[in-house]
Amino acid sequence: MKKHNFSAGPSILPREVFEKAAQAVLDFNGSGLSILEISHRSKDFVAVMEEARTLALELLGLTGKGYQALFLSGGASMEFVRVPYNLMTHLGKAAYLDTGTWAAGAIKEAKNFGETVIAASSKADNYTYIPKEYTIPADAGYFHCTSNNTIFGTQMHEFPETGVPVVCDMSSDIFSRALDFSKFSLIYAGAQKNMGPAGTTLIVVKEDILGKTGRVIPAILDYRQHIEKESMYNTPSVFAVYTSYLTLQWLKENGGIAEIEKRNTAKAELLYSEIDRNPLFTGTARAEDRSKMNATFLLEDESHTEKFDKLWKAAGISGLNGHRSVGGYRASMYNAMPLESVQVLVEVMKELEQSV
Amino acid sequence: MKKHNFSAGPSILPREVFEKAAQAVLDFNGSGLSILEISHRSKDFVAVMEEARTLALELLGLTGKGYQALFLSGGASMEFVRVPYNLMTHLGKAAYLDTGTWAAGAIKEAKNFGETVIAASSKADNYTYIPKEYTIPADAGYFHCTSNNTIFGTQMHEFPETGVPVVCDMSSDIFSRALDFSKFSLIYAGAQKNMGPAGTTLIVVKEDILGKTGRVIPAILDYRQHIEKESMYNTPSVFAVYTSYLTLQWLKENGGIAEIEKRNTAKAELLYSEIDRNPLFTGTARAEDRSKMNATFLLEDESHTEKFDKLWKAAGISGLNGHRSVGGYRASMYNAMPLESVQVLVEVMKELEQSV
Repeated sequence: MKKHNFSAGPSILPREVFEKAAQAVLDFNGSGLSILEISHRSKDFVAVMEEARTLALELLGLTGKGYQALFLSGGASMEFVRVPYNLMTHLGKAAYLDTGTWAAGAIKEAKNFGETVIAASSKADNYTYIPKEYTIPADAGYFHCTSNNTIFGTQMHEFPETGVPVVCDMSSDIFSRALDFSKFSLIYAGAQKNMGPAGTTLIVVKEDILGKTGRVIPAILDYRQHIEKESMYNTPSVFAVYTSYLTLQWLKENGGIAEIEKRNTAKAELLYSEIDRNPLFTGTARAEDRSKMNATFLLEDESHTEKFDKLWKAAGISGLNGHRSVGGYRASMYNAMPLESVQVLVEVMKELEQSV
Repeated sequence: MKKHNFSAGPSILPREVFEKAAQAVLDFNGSGLSILEISHRSKDFVAVMEEARTLALELLGLTGKGYQALFLSGGASMEFVRVPYNLMTHLGKAAYLDTGTWAAGAIKEAKNFGETVIAASSKADNYTYIPKEYTIPADAGYFHCTSNNTIFGTQMHEFPETGVPVVCDMSSDIFSRALDFSKFSLIYAGAQKNMGPAGTTLIVVKEDILGKTGRVIPAILDYRQHIEKESMYNTPSVFAVYTSYLTLQWLKENGGIAEIEKRNTAKAELLYSEIDRNPLFTGTARAEDRSKMNATFLLEDESHTEKFDKLWKAAGISGLNGHRSVGGYRASMYNAMPLESVQVLVEVMKELEQSV
């Protein structure tokens, strides 16, 4: 039976990426060797790394604008540490927007490095919305935000105009919508949503913001070291980078961000329309802040849980349970998910309505 | 043509591991989903992580001895930082043995954290041997060494008896030979030699040495956080952990470390015998310190380079060039390499001798 994978991450990738990746595990580029056993300094892999870095900047519209793309290890949680190490001076401060679990995780780490101002927080309302009225101190070293909150189903649809460098954790919505990415000084994203498998993190950084803190930075945590070594300071996560490269290629061949955004909008509109129409369901995020990547919703009457769960599982749907910290349901509709899968979910929701 | 992969890392893994890994990329455990698109918190992957952690301790003979096994991201270079963060007190010191490029890298990072004593170094002799006469200060927080030096072809065949905790970077020879692993308080190893693909690092740590520095440790760098979360503090490198698990299973099914050590010894003896017998070649490491994993050697007469390179390439050998920092040749003979591949190399060396 065809599976409809709504997992929040690691998550769905294009089928052709799985096929090419599996082939490379058996034989990479006709070399007679697996991609798992080749040197990261082999000509073929160096080319993959270079093309992946180039493609990432190209898709974001950042080519030739002073940015560098890196594929590092550690996940977004590592960037929670690398960001203050690289950008917060000893006596300086940074401003953070608290919009969810991951934003709060970033804030917690920043506090170990210096004064961390919470510009605004929606925590008191269980992160059901994105704060919009707030002030970013003009003397902050940077402003950090999380563009999409997978757990709470919210997404920033606008970003503040500010004179301080904007750092954004885009782990769960990078490459999903058109933005003026040149407004960000540093973007980071764990691969495992729209870009690739778990195991690598894309960092896009404007070079001129680095080297100003006066801190002694451990080499592996220093963005400048990685830039100097062209993202090969140490052995990269070869397979994860290769698979991310395949996914970025797929995105480019499918029209890039502009085209994928249309598809993502269509999927999200279809699902949110049903959540709003169907009296059995209710969305958890404030409508204006809803995420196009992760729709979070509840059954109005929890006694329908068993029936609903049976129905969606029988339809081949997987990964629909909400995050363990909030419960309910979460439909993650990343780039690679076809509209068809959302249609199947909507049909199931209608089926439940008719059956109760 | 059959390939003989002598790459120093990422490097050869068992063929059956590649086949199982490729299958999982297409369909993991018959789930209808790729291992690249499943949640790391799915039942099947949680089981993989648990079994991999258990198997690592079992193969090292450390079950029930107060150790924890973790699969983290970042590579050995990240452990160069995690080790002093977790083990060096603010006013304390640590002792390091300087046996090569990676040992020196670890030392460089430790110096940012506190007093770093070089117990001994073979740098002045281009790291061609392992220092043996040295004193480890009794008040050192820990003693750090590198068990095998891939670039210089040396390996520690004995470890110092000391009262301070011994920390060992075993990236390039873990699971290759029997040792009393309980003499080590912390072992770390990037997966990409004997264990799996690049993208995860095994850490085996005795729990009672942690939590004593008084430092504020960023969560992602704190071994205790990872232990508490059973190696799932953040999204692990799912595919790299799974492939490492497959390789550890293969090792167990093939007799574990005791059996693989016999094979490794046979391979190393075959190659070193030829290096010593054949007048065209010379080994670069002191004989008593030679590595069974990486044999480094030179042509006595460099004018034979072109001919030798043609011969080994024609025989299907790859990855034989020495590290870019030292030149010459390096034959890496990790666990998964069959004796047959070393025989092919020895035949080529004999062929060169007969042809000049």
